[in-house]
Amino acid sequence: MALILLNRLGKDHKDYIKQQVHVKNPYLDTMEEDILYHFSLSTKTHNLPEMFGDIKFVCVGGSANRMKAFAHFIHQDLHIPGNPDDIRDICEGTDRYSMYKVGPVLSISHGMGVPSISIMLHELIKLLHHARCQDVVLFRLGTSGGVGLNPGTVVITDKAVDYSFCPQFEQVVLGKVITRSTELDEEVASELLQYASELQSFPTVIGKTMCTHDFYEGQGRLDGALCSFSHEEKLEYLRKAYEAGVRNIEMESTVFAAMCRVCGLKAAVVCVTLLNRFEGDQITSSHEVLVEYQQRPQILVAYFIKKRLGLIP
Amino acid sequence: MALILLNRLGKDHKDYIKQQVHVKNPYLDTMEEDILYHFSLSTKTHNLPEMFGDIKFVCVGGSANRMKAFAHFIHQDLHIPGNPDDIRDICEGTDRYSMYKVGPVLSISHGMGVPSISIMLHELIKLLHHARCQDVVLFRLGTSGGVGLNPGTVVITDKAVDYSFCPQFEQVVLGKVITRSTELDEEVASELLQYASELQSFPTVIGKTMCTHDFYEGQGRLDGALCSFSHEEKLEYLRKAYEAGVRNIEMESTVFAAMCRVCGLKAAVVCVTLLNRFEGDQITSSHEVLVEYQQRPQILVAYFIKKRLGLIP
Repeated sequence: MALILLNRLGKDHKDYIKQQVHVKNPYLDTMEEDILYHFSLSTKTHNLPEMFGDIKFVCVGGSANRMKAFAHFIHQDLHIPGNPDDIRDICEGTDRYSMYKVGPVLSISHGMGVPSISIMLHELIKLLHHARCQDVVLFRLGTSGGVGLNPGTVVITDKAVDYSFCPQFEQVVLGKVITRSTELDEEVASELLQYASELQSFPTVIGKTMCTHDFYEGQGRLDGALCSFSHEEKLEYLRKAYEAGVRNIEMESTVFAAMCRVCGLKAAVVCVTLLNRFEGDQITSSHEVLVEYQQRPQILVAYFIKKRLGLIP
Repeated sequence: MALILLNRLGKDHKDYIKQQVHVKNPYLDTMEEDILYHFSLSTKTHNLPEMFGDIKFVCVGGSANRMKAFAHFIHQDLHIPGNPDDIRDICEGTDRYSMYKVGPVLSISHGMGVPSISIMLHELIKLLHHARCQDVVLFRLGTSGGVGLNPGTVVITDKAVDYSFCPQFEQVVLGKVITRSTELDEEVASELLQYASELQSFPTVIGKTMCTHDFYEGQGRLDGALCSFSHEEKLEYLRKAYEAGVRNIEMESTVFAAMCRVCGLKAAVVCVTLLNRFEGDQITSSHEVLVEYQQRPQILVAYFIKKRLGLIP
């Protein structure tokens, strides 16, 4: 499998060199034991290279149920041998996150919001490092509010932007605010867009994704417990976002992009829109319609994985 | 029950007036339907006054398993009739949060970090408003890192502070940052401290709680995937926090305090410390010890509830 992957990673000689997952922390390799507390895993109690060394694709998303469903979907779609009922939650010792491994694919839930996904990413990147994984691509599969798009549209993120539409993430380190870039991998994004056009199953666009720290006031919703602005002021903010290139709004993309970039990991954000925010705030589609929408990023990323593995010509 | 509660609420006449839960949103009461999306509840499909109208105490915490355990504990401790196995997850239509109702007590999980608890609080405050609840007290029961305290110490929060030790929460509204106060209810906090001294079961202090948006760099940990500072610089930051009155660090208290305050809800934060951050970063206690620590805030808040209900003289 490694050879197929390497052949597909790029045309230049440098692209053929295997890329290890790097942590940016000089202390880690001097620690006798590293406890990945929120995963309920440790370098002393688990053989991480044996458990995870062959991982090539990591798919993360907010909901534990959805990431379990994705693990079952990828098991079927990749024709992985074995009984799907045997796919167990590797993090079952905790209820902070759920994690499923299916062949070279790891599926993990990250909860809602930047702090929740940030804890998961610190421990995931350490896990990939301890397991000596190589040539890993990360995907965030999510749901989002659409800005000027019909519900059900899939948005591949070009740049993750903050509330002022800037491609940056502010991180506090010892009480000081530092700023990190949130640009995502161009090659993976354009490959995904190409595959969406091959699939022709649902509308897909490429655009900026705004990441907020709040679902209600932070996204200009009129239906929270607190609301101090008018309908017109809300629309004005959404219009400004649209003009800045924002096509959807979610709550995790900036820190996801920033941390992957700092650690040299290729990464993409693929979210489906559940509503058009110009037309309302409440998610009113039926359960069945929402379930079908939520499968769209999964279908696209599964297609990408099959292409990279050489399972589709 | 209401009379007992009212008799215990205070000595002045004004305290005898029932306090409804207020939302600060003029649009809500004009909406035909309010879908509490992340709870999988709605004003149209559920009779919220009938389901929740008698709620007097709301207890929230990060982990779904822990809040289920708390529901079972309070069922036993308050001698509520019925089979504990019948306590079901009211939010079972979604895996975003878990919610259990036991008599006048509601137990809800909120996930990790400010954005996750903020979504829950918006929908909880709307739920209490729609259900016409009165005289509600909210508690966050959590785990935290201790600053200069032995593991297992319970900290009742005086003020929730940000990374610069200021009692404030920054909220983005339509792209502008506004600042909200994070002071908690003094009366509830001192009542809790009094009950802790009556219980004499575990060490309990009152102090400031620092709320961060990240578990690793934001809390000065040396064991994340990213770390750009020295052991000495970390200790210097923790020393400054200690001198400013900070006794523990967690990830939800500022927005919890700010939102409850704006909506006129009495609220308290009660967290147990799992380690002393001056002595390390990793949580190394055994599972059994951690489980016992996590019960301490539950025992204290259950005692408060029994006192308020007149079940203890």
